[in-house]
Amino acid sequence: MSQNDFADWMRQIQQRTEAALGNALPDASLAPTQLHAAMRYAVLGGGKRVRPLLVHAAGEIAEAPAERLDHAACAVELIHAYSLVHDDMPCMDDDILRRGKPTVHVEYDEATALLVGDALQTLAFQVLADEAAGIDTAGQVAMIRLLAGASGSRGMAGGQAIDLAAVGKQLSREELEFMHIHKTGALIRASVLLGAHAGTPVAADELRRLDHFAKLVGLLFQVVDDILDAEADTATLGKTAGKDADHDKPTYVSLLGLGDAKRLAQEMLADAHQALAPLGDRAARLRALADYIVYRSF
Amino acid sequence: MSQNDFADWMRQIQQRTEAALGNALPDASLAPTQLHAAMRYAVLGGGKRVRPLLVHAAGEIAEAPAERLDHAACAVELIHAYSLVHDDMPCMDDDILRRGKPTVHVEYDEATALLVGDALQTLAFQVLADEAAGIDTAGQVAMIRLLAGASGSRGMAGGQAIDLAAVGKQLSREELEFMHIHKTGALIRASVLLGAHAGTPVAADELRRLDHFAKLVGLLFQVVDDILDAEADTATLGKTAGKDADHDKPTYVSLLGLGDAKRLAQEMLADAHQALAPLGDRAARLRALADYIVYRSF
Repeated sequence: MSQNDFADWMRQIQQRTEAALGNALPDASLAPTQLHAAMRYAVLGGGKRVRPLLVHAAGEIAEAPAERLDHAACAVELIHAYSLVHDDMPCMDDDILRRGKPTVHVEYDEATALLVGDALQTLAFQVLADEAAGIDTAGQVAMIRLLAGASGSRGMAGGQAIDLAAVGKQLSREELEFMHIHKTGALIRASVLLGAHAGTPVAADELRRLDHFAKLVGLLFQVVDDILDAEADTATLGKTAGKDADHDKPTYVSLLGLGDAKRLAQEMLADAHQALAPLGDRAARLRALADYIVYRSF
Repeated sequence: MSQNDFADWMRQIQQRTEAALGNALPDASLAPTQLHAAMRYAVLGGGKRVRPLLVHAAGEIAEAPAERLDHAACAVELIHAYSLVHDDMPCMDDDILRRGKPTVHVEYDEATALLVGDALQTLAFQVLADEAAGIDTAGQVAMIRLLAGASGSRGMAGGQAIDLAAVGKQLSREELEFMHIHKTGALIRASVLLGAHAGTPVAADELRRLDHFAKLVGLLFQVVDDILDAEADTATLGKTAGKDADHDKPTYVSLLGLGDAKRLAQEMLADAHQALAPLGDRAARLRALADYIVYRSF
């Protein structure tokens, strides 16, 4: 697969995800109109859609129909979007810029941001429970269970709680990993598994390899995020840069230094490639996505 | 059914709901421990459990097994609890007292309250998708769809958005009803429907009657809440009294006056009884619950 083919595929998945999200979100003309407008503002027209890309790339391995993957991709992206809206609020990270635009509580107000996040989370489960999901009900329930497990207090929301408790503390690498496995890793991992579960059953050994890959990519994503946050300026990042250091939050860069954090990212990328080696060309897009996640900074 | 029998039944359902919620909520010894402790603080040891009572009373009509109803009752109560935690936050109603205890953001902090609400919502869907739910997957998906529809931007969260937008405005009775049908009514209605869907299919006419009853009770609940808020002092109410008037929020009392609001409650109660008349004794507990909701203030 050439770089051009991969870039075309990415663009195609991003476009179909944008369309699917636009359909899933209530129209801004429906009451309550401001809430619906704010929900659309929070979700549409931005973001790299890394999680939907992972859903689709993993779904190809299971030969899942693209329409079915759209549902899973939407659901994961809605959970991700809700977490960003709440995470940006003054009582959390107090961020004013996201994807190059004012955050929801800045553009609207805090109460609206709170309700937007709440309603986006509900919509994620509504999308997976949709009659038009094109998947048997046993599969729907399994996917809902997977997404809920990755999102709740033992997944993403739990990771954010650990993150809050860690401000101003010196963490070991193990503690930092524990936090990120929950905060970012759980949803990245769920993206791959949702894709893999949306088609014909994948062999147990391949599923184990996909899961290992997904865990590595989840952590890798955070290591690269920390590197980006330390290096980039606000314009490139589309969100306020250097916030982690400002907030005295432990990061891979503050723990290991920039050079070693970059070396760690390279090592993890090599491990991720190795995990998928036996899957051959079927996993070409997943491998390319891992590369993309690491090199998006360069 | 005597008053004593009904009181015994209520106590029994409240106790089994408390136990089921205690099992569904992660133990406070599990990481992240503070988040889990705060989730338990928000949910356990308080509340009249009106929604679980409605689930069980409606479930009896469908001859649903009590264990199955526990799952539905837990899920609805978790959604209700999450909405209270977020609703009490400073950017919303800014309340410091709930069920006679400090609200979550007062007892912990705002960021924790935000995450507690988020994680409780996720848990609600996790409970309905649980393998131990004792219901076929088609039924699980139908119940998840029902609860999500009642909770999201076109249900409860939407009602809160309308409520926020209404502060300081004079609403007509129609507009006030539209708000409450979403804010409180949707989840009350979902409680009855979840119960009715958890057993053997209920005849179409009976389901229509149950739905009509549920809509009336949902509104009735709010009318009585407005009366209570206008009349009660903080000690009786277990939450800060008179907040609605303080916040210049439209209520049935501010719109109709106290006397007419009470007369409206009586009329709606009579309608609710009438809706269930053809169901005879099978609906005795639902009727008693409607009475309880109206007379809890007296």
